[in-house]
Amino acid sequence: MTILFTVYYGAVINPESLTTFKALPRCLFLVNGDGYIDWIVDDVESSDLQNVLASKGLIDIDVYVLKNGEFVMPGFVDTHTHAPQVPNIGSGQQYELLDWLENVTFPMESKFSDAEFARKTYPSVVQRFINAGTTTCCYYATIHLEATKILADVVKHQGQRAFVGKCNMNRNSPDNYRESSEEESIAATKELIAYIQSIDSDLVHPILTPRFAISCTSPLLSSLGDMLKSDPNLAIQTHISENQNEVKLTLELFSESTTYAGVYDDHGLLTERMILAHAVHLGESELQLIAVRKAGISHCPTSNFNLRSGMAKVGEMLDRGIKVGLGTDVSGGYSPSILTAVQHTSICSKMVANHSMHQSSSSNGTFANKQLPMTTLLYLATMGGAEVCNLSHKIGNLQPGKSFDALIVSVRHDAGNPAVWGFEDDFEHVPTKEELEGFLERFLFCGDDRNISKVFVQGRLVGGKSFVKGA
Amino acid sequence: MTILFTVYYGAVINPESLTTFKALPRCLFLVNGDGYIDWIVDDVESSDLQNVLASKGLIDIDVYVLKNGEFVMPGFVDTHTHAPQVPNIGSGQQYELLDWLENVTFPMESKFSDAEFARKTYPSVVQRFINAGTTTCCYYATIHLEATKILADVVKHQGQRAFVGKCNMNRNSPDNYRESSEEESIAATKELIAYIQSIDSDLVHPILTPRFAISCTSPLLSSLGDMLKSDPNLAIQTHISENQNEVKLTLELFSESTTYAGVYDDHGLLTERMILAHAVHLGESELQLIAVRKAGISHCPTSNFNLRSGMAKVGEMLDRGIKVGLGTDVSGGYSPSILTAVQHTSICSKMVANHSMHQSSSSNGTFANKQLPMTTLLYLATMGGAEVCNLSHKIGNLQPGKSFDALIVSVRHDAGNPAVWGFEDDFEHVPTKEELEGFLERFLFCGDDRNISKVFVQGRLVGGKSFVKGA
Repeated sequence: MTILFTVYYGAVINPESLTTFKALPRCLFLVNGDGYIDWIVDDVESSDLQNVLASKGLIDIDVYVLKNGEFVMPGFVDTHTHAPQVPNIGSGQQYELLDWLENVTFPMESKFSDAEFARKTYPSVVQRFINAGTTTCCYYATIHLEATKILADVVKHQGQRAFVGKCNMNRNSPDNYRESSEEESIAATKELIAYIQSIDSDLVHPILTPRFAISCTSPLLSSLGDMLKSDPNLAIQTHISENQNEVKLTLELFSESTTYAGVYDDHGLLTERMILAHAVHLGESELQLIAVRKAGISHCPTSNFNLRSGMAKVGEMLDRGIKVGLGTDVSGGYSPSILTAVQHTSICSKMVANHSMHQSSSSNGTFANKQLPMTTLLYLATMGGAEVCNLSHKIGNLQPGKSFDALIVSVRHDAGNPAVWGFEDDFEHVPTKEELEGFLERFLFCGDDRNISKVFVQGRLVGGKSFVKGA
Repeated sequence: MTILFTVYYGAVINPESLTTFKALPRCLFLVNGDGYIDWIVDDVESSDLQNVLASKGLIDIDVYVLKNGEFVMPGFVDTHTHAPQVPNIGSGQQYELLDWLENVTFPMESKFSDAEFARKTYPSVVQRFINAGTTTCCYYATIHLEATKILADVVKHQGQRAFVGKCNMNRNSPDNYRESSEEESIAATKELIAYIQSIDSDLVHPILTPRFAISCTSPLLSSLGDMLKSDPNLAIQTHISENQNEVKLTLELFSESTTYAGVYDDHGLLTERMILAHAVHLGESELQLIAVRKAGISHCPTSNFNLRSGMAKVGEMLDRGIKVGLGTDVSGGYSPSILTAVQHTSICSKMVANHSMHQSSSSNGTFANKQLPMTTLLYLATMGGAEVCNLSHKIGNLQPGKSFDALIVSVRHDAGNPAVWGFEDDFEHVPTKEELEGFLERFLFCGDDRNISKVFVQGRLVGGKSFVKGA
């Protein structure tokens, strides 16, 4: 049987802007057979349900009615993570970045030279991210073409929306985990792009992935810049200014550039299609340059705390109009869930605000040196990520014409997460707007995968607690 | 059938000191019928198991054999939490302390004037803490005598080791949530102590609980000091130096004392039986005073981040020999799990270390201004908490003669927590010491209640994932 459409009725959380979102207790909307939202009616009394449907020409149809304590919200966008590092998750917290790469990361990533290992590992990796509520994910794979193709296949098969990139690394990496030349690196990158385009998925996109400036020679970065120029649809992701020793080494390696952001700009990489992870130690001129170039930032607070990198000044970026999304950065970050990133974004903004008070820093803007409210946290986890991926016309919130990339969240007692106090366990009424906002806050701060009942990408059920096929 | 004893065989994690712990892959130990550990043999090959048992006079007995990926460790000690605030968990993150008390905390706590509400609420509260791995818990209840007795009953019934205190609050609190006089407050406190002593439990202890100096008049604090002097077994808990506005108000209210710690000392409350929660903004003289008085600190980083209180300098306290344990401080903290406190203690120490680098602060000691290693985190969560509670002769690690307050932890794939990568899902060998240390790190940084199979207090199974009676 082909399902032509599904009508949903119940509570909806819908981000609007960095400072506003809608909590709609009684929302009615239709997702068509292609996975797009056709229409949304914000406030429908249950007694009026059939009338509203009839006005849409729908008579005698089944409606998916959410229970009290459930709500629909847009899926999370994880703008920065490393698929091959998931088996390392929760290890190596004693290291800072450069030692951590050498001792924890590179040894694991080098195992993906074995395609069989990739084939065995990636399905479980991808399903974990999906079940954590991530409907769009920006993946770094490894330097290995074959394993990266496998990751793209897995993502396609499991139905996530994603960017998949093969790392470019032709220097300052271990002998057994380095590309032998610029030419080899570029050839493999081109082959990956052609492969991903050939698998004919609207959901999986190739993305250029120079790991970071340190691991790439200047000619390699220039060649990637040429590829970016010749294909206006091609995205790119890299790391920037994560750790102070990394910044120092970068400026030593690229002495002709004046700043770290300048290195990428000087090679033609700093465009609106660029996703820059971390951005902890950026200077004033770099922030200005990034704003002018319209590049996006992936804020990865779990990783920045865990690897002792520091606290990114997200508020300042937002005041400058820079696009910001959240990233889990597994396994620098010890959680695959954007919920953890939301909690740590809140903590990071509060500690930056405290610190600025001691330093009498300016807090004239809307966000700089202030704690980020829940509304902004929600936006960063959804719409902000969509903007960073240049997909905000398709995803990030629920609007007619956009894809149904969404979660059904439950904060009910029977969701089975004891860290969430089942809100009004026995309540019989439709939640008020204020109660629904409370549901969202509990989910963001105490929720886990058990509170995510269903995960939809382009209207298709691909994961969540009630999804039986899970890895 | 009376179980006279149980013999366990498998991996054990055993804290020793702030800088050492033992990871024992093949440990054999016996827990007797009274719930005490009789003996432990650190390293026993499975082929040698029956010989070792025979040498102990044990022939043909059943042994509880842990699976690969499971280990036994001491249970967590939560040195500071608020039982009546659990229904508020995950709400109010927009407030700082004093506004948060007014808008979030006091309205919920006042509901416990209704004993029926307490009877309905507390069993689920206590079971959540147990299932999170907390075998000893320091509870604040409310000002209500009846509801606090109910909490003590629930704790006894559910078998947790705990301190249960009725808050003393006779000023600077809402009209409907304040004790009318010093005399009323003291009388109810004495009645609670007598009640808890009468229920004849070795596990449940009364504890004096002046909420904080702000909510108590000087005569009330003095009377509590008298009670403390007259009963050498009586413990006491309170808050100290959590938030800068709170510190300021405290010094205004107690102008005759020179510091916040001095307020408690001047009333005879600062003894080795005192548990001081937070201690974020303590000055040099206060740290010296606390060290001299041998009072303990409950470090509550989740709460301190969430209410924007600041970052406590735990390393400095440890270098001074001050006892430190961890606290969840629900609902200032948004998680009932000491695992979250462990993660946030790590983050807090790393950010304090970074901050001190910018300020060129001293890092001459073992811990001050340095990131806390996993060994120290483990110690704080177990032995450190036991020391703060003055129970380190009974609990905190696994030693002959100590109570079996312990967890069986599983980091196996079938534990069902997708945030933990099931370590070597298919491995058949007994884990090495290094692998076992890796299990511990994954559990501390990625674990949740699903990884806690069994929770024992005084040898009795009281909770965990495999415990069917759970709330």
